[in-house]
Amino acid sequence: MHPTLTVFESSPDRGRGLARDMRVRWALEEAAVPYNVRLVSFEAMKQAAHLARNPFGQIPAYEEGDLVLFESGAIVLHIAQRHAGLLPADAGARARAIMWMFAALNTVETPIVEREAASYAERGKAWQAEHLAMLDARVSERLEALSRHLGDRRWLDGAFSAADILMVLVLRRLEGSGLLEHFPALLAYIARGEARPAYRRAFDAQRAVFEATRGG
Amino acid sequence: MHPTLTVFESSPDRGRGLARDMRVRWALEEAAVPYNVRLVSFEAMKQAAHLARNPFGQIPAYEEGDLVLFESGAIVLHIAQRHAGLLPADAGARARAIMWMFAALNTVETPIVEREAASYAERGKAWQAEHLAMLDARVSERLEALSRHLGDRRWLDGAFSAADILMVLVLRRLEGSGLLEHFPALLAYIARGEARPAYRRAFDAQRAVFEATRGG
Repeated sequence: MHPTLTVFESSPDRGRGLARDMRVRWALEEAAVPYNVRLVSFEAMKQAAHLARNPFGQIPAYEEGDLVLFESGAIVLHIAQRHAGLLPADAGARARAIMWMFAALNTVETPIVEREAASYAERGKAWQAEHLAMLDARVSERLEALSRHLGDRRWLDGAFSAADILMVLVLRRLEGSGLLEHFPALLAYIARGEARPAYRRAFDAQRAVFEATRGG
Repeated sequence: MHPTLTVFESSPDRGRGLARDMRVRWALEEAAVPYNVRLVSFEAMKQAAHLARNPFGQIPAYEEGDLVLFESGAIVLHIAQRHAGLLPADAGARARAIMWMFAALNTVETPIVEREAASYAERGKAWQAEHLAMLDARVSERLEALSRHLGDRRWLDGAFSAADILMVLVLRRLEGSGLLEHFPALLAYIARGEARPAYRRAFDAQRAVFEATRGG
Protein backbone atom coordinates (compact mmCIF):
# COMPACT_ATOMS: atom_id res chain seq x y z
CA MET A 1 0.00 0.00 0.00
CA HIS A 2 1.65 3.27 -1.09
CA PRO A 3 0.91 6.46 0.81
CA THR A 4 -1.29 9.11 -0.81
CA LEU A 5 -0.31 12.75 -0.93
CA THR A 6 -2.98 15.41 -1.47
CA VAL A 7 -1.70 18.40 -3.47
CA PHE A 8 -3.00 21.46 -5.33
CA GLU A 9 -4.77 20.61 -8.57
CA SER A 10 -3.53 23.93 -9.85
CA SER A 11 -0.65 25.23 -7.76
CA PRO A 12 -0.53 29.03 -7.36
CA ASP A 13 3.26 28.84 -7.83
CA ARG A 14 2.75 27.63 -11.42
CA GLY A 15 4.87 24.52 -11.02
CA ARG A 16 7.94 26.17 -9.50
CA GLY A 17 8.13 23.65 -6.66
CA LEU A 18 7.27 26.19 -3.96
CA ALA A 19 4.06 24.59 -2.70
CA ARG A 20 4.44 22.63 0.53
CA ASP A 21 3.83 19.22 -1.07
CA MET A 22 7.34 19.59 -2.59
CA ARG A 23 8.81 19.03 0.90
CA VAL A 24 7.02 15.72 1.25
CA ARG A 25 7.74 14.66 -2.33
CA TRP A 26 11.47 15.31 -1.85
CA ALA A 27 11.53 13.33 1.44
CA LEU A 28 9.70 10.42 -0.18
CA GLU A 29 12.14 10.46 -3.10
CA GLU A 30 15.16 10.49 -0.76
CA ALA A 31 13.63 7.51 1.07
CA ALA A 32 12.73 5.79 -2.24
CA VAL A 33 9.07 5.45 -1.18
CA PRO A 34 6.61 5.35 -4.11
CA TYR A 35 3.41 7.34 -3.52
CA ASN A 36 0.06 8.19 -5.06
CA VAL A 37 -1.21 11.71 -5.58
CA ARG A 38 -4.71 13.16 -5.09
CA LEU A 39 -5.41 16.55 -6.65
CA VAL A 40 -7.71 19.06 -4.90
CA SER A 41 -9.10 22.27 -6.33
CA PHE A 42 -9.25 25.48 -4.27
CA GLU A 43 -13.00 24.90 -3.84
CA ALA A 44 -12.59 21.28 -2.71
CA MET A 45 -9.94 22.33 -0.14
CA LYS A 46 -12.65 24.07 1.89
CA GLN A 47 -15.16 21.20 1.71
CA ALA A 48 -15.84 18.41 4.18
CA ALA A 49 -13.85 15.60 2.52
CA HIS A 50 -10.64 17.62 2.60
CA LEU A 51 -11.36 19.30 5.96
CA ALA A 52 -11.50 15.78 7.43
CA ARG A 53 -7.88 15.42 6.28
CA ASN A 54 -6.83 18.92 7.35
CA PRO A 55 -9.17 21.05 9.50
CA PHE A 56 -7.35 24.18 8.30
CA GLY A 57 -8.17 23.41 4.66
CA GLN A 58 -4.59 23.48 3.39
CA ILE A 59 -2.29 21.14 1.47
CA PRO A 60 -0.49 18.79 1.74
CA ALA A 61 -2.28 15.95 3.47
CA TYR A 62 -0.75 12.49 3.77
CA GLU A 63 -2.53 9.16 4.12
CA GLU A 64 -0.84 5.90 4.99
CA GLY A 65 -3.35 3.17 5.75
CA ASP A 66 -5.52 4.53 8.57
CA LEU A 67 -3.14 7.32 9.44
CA VAL A 68 -4.03 10.77 8.13
CA LEU A 69 -1.54 13.61 8.67
CA PHE A 70 -1.33 17.26 7.73
CA GLU A 71 1.48 19.84 8.36
CA SER A 72 4.37 19.36 5.96
CA GLY A 73 6.93 19.42 8.79
CA ALA A 74 5.16 16.64 10.68
CA ILE A 75 4.76 14.54 7.53
CA VAL A 76 8.45 14.88 6.66
CA LEU A 77 9.41 13.98 10.23
CA HIS A 78 7.09 10.96 10.13
CA ILE A 79 8.74 9.73 6.91
CA ALA A 80 12.23 10.47 8.27
CA GLN A 81 11.59 8.45 11.42
CA ARG A 82 10.52 5.38 9.43
CA HIS A 83 13.08 5.32 6.61
CA ALA A 84 16.87 5.48 6.53
CA GLY A 85 18.81 8.45 5.21
CA LEU A 86 16.83 11.41 6.50
CA LEU A 87 17.90 11.58 10.15
CA PRO A 88 21.21 10.66 11.83
CA ALA A 89 21.32 7.46 13.90
CA ASP A 90 23.14 9.08 16.85
CA ALA A 91 20.57 10.33 19.40
CA GLY A 92 22.13 13.76 19.91
CA ALA A 93 22.64 14.43 16.21
CA ARG A 94 19.07 13.29 15.60
CA ALA A 95 17.70 15.72 18.18
CA ARG A 96 19.70 18.53 16.54
CA ALA A 97 18.40 17.61 13.06
CA ILE A 98 14.83 17.80 14.39
CA MET A 99 15.72 21.13 16.02
CA TRP A 100 16.76 22.46 12.60
CA MET A 101 13.46 21.24 11.14
CA PHE A 102 11.63 23.42 13.67
CA ALA A 103 14.08 26.28 13.03
CA ALA A 104 13.39 26.15 9.28
CA LEU A 105 9.63 26.38 9.80
CA ASN A 106 9.34 28.57 12.89
CA THR A 107 12.29 30.92 12.79
CA VAL A 108 13.25 31.23 9.13
CA GLU A 109 10.00 30.65 7.25
CA THR A 110 7.79 32.79 9.51
CA PRO A 111 8.92 36.23 8.26
CA ILE A 112 9.22 34.90 4.69
CA VAL A 113 5.56 33.84 4.64
CA GLU A 114 4.61 37.19 6.13
CA ARG A 115 6.48 38.98 3.39
CA GLU A 116 4.66 36.91 0.76
CA ALA A 117 1.29 37.55 2.39
CA ALA A 118 1.96 41.29 2.42
CA SER A 119 3.03 41.27 -1.21
CA TYR A 120 -0.42 40.18 -2.36
CA ALA A 121 -2.82 41.10 0.45
CA GLU A 122 -1.60 44.71 0.57
CA ARG A 123 -1.42 45.28 -3.17
CA GLY A 124 -2.59 48.78 -3.97
CA LYS A 125 -2.23 50.09 -0.41
CA ALA A 126 -0.29 53.33 -0.17
CA TRP A 127 1.71 51.90 2.74
CA GLN A 128 2.67 48.57 1.15
CA ALA A 129 6.21 49.62 0.16
CA GLU A 130 6.94 50.94 3.65
CA HIS A 131 5.66 47.72 5.23
CA LEU A 132 7.55 45.48 2.80
CA ALA A 133 10.78 47.28 3.65
CA MET A 134 10.19 46.48 7.34
CA LEU A 135 9.52 42.84 6.50
CA ASP A 136 12.61 42.63 4.27
CA ALA A 137 14.69 43.76 7.22
CA ARG A 138 13.19 41.04 9.41
CA VAL A 139 13.81 38.36 6.79
CA SER A 140 17.38 39.55 6.24
CA GLU A 141 18.15 39.40 9.95
CA ARG A 142 17.25 35.70 9.94
CA LEU A 143 19.19 35.06 6.71
CA GLU A 144 22.24 36.74 8.22
CA ALA A 145 22.15 34.46 11.28
CA LEU A 146 21.59 31.38 9.15
CA SER A 147 24.38 32.32 6.74
CA ARG A 148 26.77 32.86 9.66
CA HIS A 149 25.85 29.43 11.03
CA LEU A 150 26.31 27.72 7.66
CA GLY A 151 29.69 29.27 6.88
CA ASP A 152 31.60 26.51 5.12
CA ARG A 153 29.23 23.73 6.20
CA ARG A 154 27.69 21.72 3.37
CA TRP A 155 24.49 21.06 5.36
CA LEU A 156 22.93 22.45 8.54
CA ASP A 157 24.46 19.95 10.97
CA GLY A 158 26.74 17.19 9.66
CA ALA A 159 25.23 14.94 7.01
CA PHE A 160 22.26 15.89 4.79
CA SER A 161 18.98 15.42 6.70
CA ALA A 162 15.26 16.15 6.59
CA ALA A 163 16.09 19.57 8.06
CA ASP A 164 17.95 20.48 4.86
CA ILE A 165 14.88 19.54 2.81
CA LEU A 166 12.78 22.01 4.79
CA MET A 167 15.41 24.76 4.96
CA VAL A 168 16.34 24.66 1.26
CA LEU A 169 12.68 24.86 0.25
CA VAL A 170 11.92 27.61 2.76
CA LEU A 171 14.79 29.67 1.35
CA ARG A 172 13.64 29.04 -2.23
CA ARG A 173 10.46 30.99 -1.41
CA LEU A 174 12.66 34.10 -1.54
CA GLU A 175 13.64 33.57 -5.18
CA GLY A 176 13.06 36.78 -7.07
CA SER A 177 13.04 38.90 -3.89
CA GLY A 178 16.67 39.97 -4.27
CA LEU A 179 17.29 39.19 -0.59
CA LEU A 180 19.20 35.92 -1.03
CA GLU A 181 21.82 37.51 -3.26
CA HIS A 182 23.46 39.17 -0.24
CA PHE A 183 24.31 35.74 1.16
CA PRO A 184 26.49 33.61 -1.17
CA ALA A 185 26.65 30.82 1.44
CA LEU A 186 22.86 30.49 1.24
CA LEU A 187 22.80 30.49 -2.56
CA ALA A 188 25.43 27.74 -2.62
CA TYR A 189 23.47 25.77 -0.01
CA ILE A 190 20.26 25.98 -2.06
CA ALA A 191 22.18 24.88 -5.17
CA ARG A 192 23.55 21.83 -3.31
CA GLY A 193 20.01 20.84 -2.38
CA GLU A 194 18.68 21.32 -5.89
CA ALA A 195 21.52 19.18 -7.29
CA ARG A 196 20.35 16.07 -5.45
CA PRO A 197 18.70 13.51 -7.76
CA ALA A 198 15.80 13.09 -5.31
CA TYR A 199 15.15 16.84 -5.43
CA ARG A 200 15.08 16.71 -9.22
CA ARG A 201 12.64 13.78 -9.30
CA ALA A 202 10.33 15.54 -6.81
CA PHE A 203 10.53 18.79 -8.76
CA ASP A 204 9.71 17.07 -12.05
CA ALA A 205 6.75 15.24 -10.49
CA GLN A 206 5.11 18.41 -9.17
CA ARG A 207 5.90 20.20 -12.42
CA ALA A 208 4.17 17.45 -14.39
CA VAL A 209 0.96 18.04 -12.40
CA PHE A 210 1.06 21.72 -13.26
CA GLU A 211 1.73 21.04 -16.94
CA ALA A 212 -1.08 18.48 -17.11
CA THR A 213 -3.70 20.73 -15.48
CA ARG A 214 -2.75 24.17 -16.80
CA GLY A 215 -5.11 23.82 -19.72
CA GLY A 216 -8.02 23.18 -17.29
CA MET B 1 22.79 15.97 35.95
CA HIS B 2 19.74 18.18 35.54
CA PRO B 3 19.17 19.97 32.22
CA THR B 4 19.71 23.73 32.07
CA LEU B 5 17.18 26.07 30.51
CA THR B 6 18.26 29.53 29.36
CA VAL B 7 15.53 32.15 29.79
CA PHE B 8 15.07 35.94 29.74
CA GLU B 9 16.60 37.69 32.74
CA SER B 10 13.83 40.23 32.37
CA SER B 11 10.97 38.87 30.31
CA PRO B 12 9.20 41.45 28.13
CA ASP B 13 5.88 39.82 29.08
CA ARG B 14 6.44 40.92 32.72
CA GLY B 15 6.01 37.42 34.15
CA ARG B 16 2.75 36.53 32.43
CA GLY B 17 4.08 33.16 31.22
CA LEU B 18 4.03 34.15 27.54
CA ALA B 19 7.75 33.78 26.83
CA ARG B 20 8.71 30.57 25.05
CA ASP B 21 10.58 29.08 28.03
CA MET B 22 7.13 28.52 29.59
CA ARG B 23 6.54 25.71 27.04
CA VAL B 24 9.65 23.89 28.11
CA ARG B 25 9.05 24.52 31.82
CA TRP B 26 5.53 23.10 31.55
CA ALA B 27 6.77 19.98 29.68
CA LEU B 28 9.50 19.43 32.28
CA GLU B 29 6.96 19.77 35.10
CA GLU B 30 4.58 17.29 33.43
CA ALA B 31 7.51 14.86 33.11
CA ALA B 32 8.67 15.59 36.69
CA VAL B 33 12.19 16.49 35.49
CA PRO B 34 14.04 18.95 37.75
CA TYR B 35 16.04 21.61 35.88
CA ASN B 36 18.39 24.51 36.35
CA VAL B 37 17.85 27.98 34.92
CA ARG B 38 20.35 30.41 33.38
CA LEU B 39 19.23 34.01 32.98
CA VAL B 40 20.36 36.07 29.96
CA SER B 41 19.96 39.79 29.45
CA PHE B 42 18.90 41.26 26.08
CA GLU B 43 22.51 42.30 25.51
CA ALA B 44 23.94 38.86 26.35
CA MET B 45 21.46 37.20 23.95
CA LYS B 46 23.31 38.74 21.03
CA GLN B 47 26.79 37.82 22.27
CA ALA B 48 28.99 34.84 21.41
CA ALA B 49 28.29 32.65 24.45
CA HIS B 50 24.55 32.66 23.80
CA LEU B 51 24.84 32.60 19.99
CA ALA B 52 26.74 29.31 20.41
CA ARG B 53 23.58 27.96 22.03
CA ASN B 54 21.19 29.59 19.55
CA PRO B 55 22.56 31.19 16.37
CA PHE B 56 19.38 33.29 16.09
CA GLY B 57 19.99 34.85 19.52
CA GLN B 58 16.64 33.90 21.02
CA ILE B 59 15.43 32.07 24.10
CA PRO B 60 14.94 29.36 25.24
CA ALA B 61 18.03 27.21 24.90
CA TYR B 62 18.27 23.78 26.54
CA GLU B 63 21.39 21.93 27.62
CA GLU B 64 21.49 18.32 28.68
CA GLY B 65 25.05 17.03 29.03
CA ASP B 66 26.71 17.65 25.66
CA LEU B 67 23.44 18.23 23.84
CA VAL B 68 22.49 21.86 23.19
CA LEU B 69 19.08 22.58 21.65
CA PHE B 70 17.13 25.69 20.72
CA GLU B 71 13.57 26.02 19.26
CA SER B 72 10.93 25.52 21.93
CA GLY B 73 9.00 23.01 19.78
CA ALA B 74 12.06 20.83 19.29
CA ILE B 75 12.96 20.97 22.98
CA VAL B 76 9.44 19.99 24.04
CA LEU B 77 9.46 17.14 21.52
CA HIS B 78 12.86 15.98 22.79
CA ILE B 79 11.55 15.88 26.36
CA ALA B 80 8.31 14.20 25.28
CA GLN B 81 10.19 11.44 23.46
CA ARG B 82 12.26 10.61 26.55
CA HIS B 83 9.68 10.77 29.32
CA ALA B 84 6.25 9.22 29.80
CA GLY B 85 3.02 11.19 29.72
CA LEU B 86 3.60 13.68 26.92
CA LEU B 87 3.04 11.53 23.81
CA PRO B 88 0.75 8.53 23.22
CA ALA B 89 2.36 5.07 23.02
CA ASP B 90 0.39 4.03 19.91
CA ALA B 91 2.41 4.89 16.77
CA GLY B 92 -0.46 6.50 14.85
CA ALA B 93 -1.68 8.57 17.80
CA ARG B 94 1.92 9.61 18.43
CA ALA B 95 2.34 10.81 14.83
CA ARG B 96 -0.89 12.79 15.16
CA ALA B 97 0.23 14.39 18.43
CA ILE B 98 3.48 15.50 16.75
CA MET B 99 1.39 16.80 13.83
CA TRP B 100 -0.57 18.98 16.26
CA MET B 101 2.71 20.28 17.71
CA PHE B 102 3.65 21.51 14.24
CA ALA B 103 0.12 22.84 13.69
CA ALA B 104 0.32 24.89 16.90
CA LEU B 105 3.59 26.52 15.88
CA ASN B 106 3.24 26.77 12.10
CA THR B 107 -0.44 27.22 11.42
CA VAL B 108 -1.90 28.82 14.56
CA GLU B 109 1.01 30.76 16.05
CA THR B 110 2.26 32.27 12.78
CA PRO B 111 -0.44 34.94 12.32
CA ILE B 112 -0.56 35.55 16.09
CA VAL B 113 3.14 36.44 16.18
CA GLU B 114 2.66 38.63 13.15
CA ARG B 115 -0.16 40.48 14.88
CA GLU B 116 2.06 41.02 17.94
CA ALA B 117 4.93 42.24 15.78
CA ALA B 118 2.66 44.71 14.02
CA SER B 119 1.27 45.97 17.30
CA TYR B 120 4.66 47.29 18.39
CA ALA B 121 6.71 47.68 15.18
CA GLU B 122 4.01 49.78 13.51
CA ARG B 123 3.13 51.93 16.49
CA GLY B 124 2.47 55.46 15.33
CA LYS B 125 2.01 54.54 11.65
CA ALA B 126 -1.15 55.97 10.10
CA TRP B 127 -1.90 52.57 8.56
CA GLN B 128 -1.43 50.44 11.67
CA ALA B 129 -5.15 50.10 12.45
CA GLU B 130 -5.95 49.05 8.88
CA HIS B 131 -3.16 46.46 8.93
CA LEU B 132 -4.12 45.11 12.37
CA ALA B 133 -7.69 44.58 11.16
CA MET B 134 -6.33 42.44 8.29
CA LEU B 135 -4.19 40.45 10.71
CA ASP B 136 -7.11 39.99 13.13
CA ALA B 137 -9.08 38.43 10.27
CA ARG B 138 -6.25 36.00 9.52
CA VAL B 139 -5.91 35.01 13.17
CA SER B 140 -9.67 34.56 13.51
CA GLU B 141 -9.82 32.27 10.48
CA ARG B 142 -7.34 29.93 12.19
CA LEU B 143 -9.17 30.17 15.53
CA GLU B 144 -12.43 29.30 13.78
CA ALA B 145 -10.94 26.13 12.24
CA LEU B 146 -9.31 25.13 15.53
CA SER B 147 -12.50 25.74 17.49
CA ARG B 148 -14.49 23.63 15.01
CA HIS B 149 -11.95 20.83 15.38
CA LEU B 150 -12.00 20.98 19.17
CA GLY B 151 -15.77 20.98 19.53
CA ASP B 152 -16.44 18.91 22.65
CA ARG B 153 -12.96 17.39 22.77
CA ARG B 154 -11.04 17.97 25.99
CA TRP B 155 -7.67 17.96 24.19
CA LEU B 156 -6.52 18.16 20.56
CA ASP B 157 -6.44 14.43 19.89
CA GLY B 158 -7.37 11.97 22.64
CA ALA B 159 -5.35 12.26 25.84
CA PHE B 160 -3.43 15.38 26.91
CA SER B 161 -0.09 15.60 25.09
CA ALA B 162 2.86 17.88 24.34
CA ALA B 163 0.75 19.34 21.51
CA ASP B 164 -1.70 20.74 24.06
CA ILE B 165 1.17 22.42 25.91
CA LEU B 166 2.17 24.26 22.73
CA MET B 167 -1.37 25.04 21.58
CA VAL B 168 -2.64 26.35 24.94
CA LEU B 169 0.38 28.64 25.25
CA VAL B 170 0.12 29.82 21.64
CA LEU B 171 -3.53 30.74 22.23
CA ARG B 172 -2.68 32.52 25.47
CA ARG B 173 -0.64 35.02 23.42
CA LEU B 174 -4.01 36.42 22.30
CA GLU B 175 -5.08 37.36 25.83
CA GLY B 176 -6.28 40.94 25.82
CA SER B 177 -6.84 40.98 22.05
CA GLY B 178 -10.58 40.32 22.31
CA LEU B 179 -10.29 37.66 19.60
CA LEU B 180 -10.55 34.56 21.80
CA GLU B 181 -13.86 35.65 23.29
CA HIS B 182 -15.68 34.67 20.08
CA PHE B 183 -14.69 31.04 20.65
CA PRO B 184 -15.94 29.61 23.97
CA ALA B 185 -14.49 26.18 23.09
CA LEU B 186 -11.02 27.73 22.94
CA LEU B 187 -11.46 29.62 26.22
CA ALA B 188 -12.54 26.41 27.94
CA TYR B 189 -9.60 24.55 26.40
CA ILE B 190 -7.10 27.16 27.66
CA ALA B 191 -8.70 26.99 31.13
CA ARG B 192 -8.27 23.20 31.18
CA GLY B 193 -4.59 23.61 30.40
CA GLU B 194 -4.08 26.28 33.04
CA ALA B 195 -5.79 24.08 35.64
CA ARG B 196 -3.12 21.38 35.43
CA PRO B 197 -0.80 21.34 38.46
CA ALA B 198 2.26 21.14 36.18
CA TYR B 199 1.12 24.31 34.38
CA ARG B 200 0.77 26.09 37.68
CA ARG B 201 4.24 25.05 38.88
CA ALA B 202 5.79 26.18 35.59
CA PHE B 203 3.91 29.48 35.71
CA ASP B 204 4.97 30.18 39.29
CA ALA B 205 8.62 29.38 38.46
CA GLN B 206 8.81 31.86 35.56
CA ARG B 207 6.89 34.42 37.61
CA ALA B 208 9.39 34.11 40.43
CA VAL B 209 12.22 35.02 38.01
CA PHE B 210 10.36 38.15 36.99
CA GLU B 211 9.60 39.13 40.57
CA ALA B 212 13.23 38.59 41.62
CA THR B 213 14.73 40.64 38.77
CA ARG B 214 12.17 43.43 38.35
CA GLY B 215 14.05 45.64 40.76
CA GLY B 216 17.19 45.35 38.60
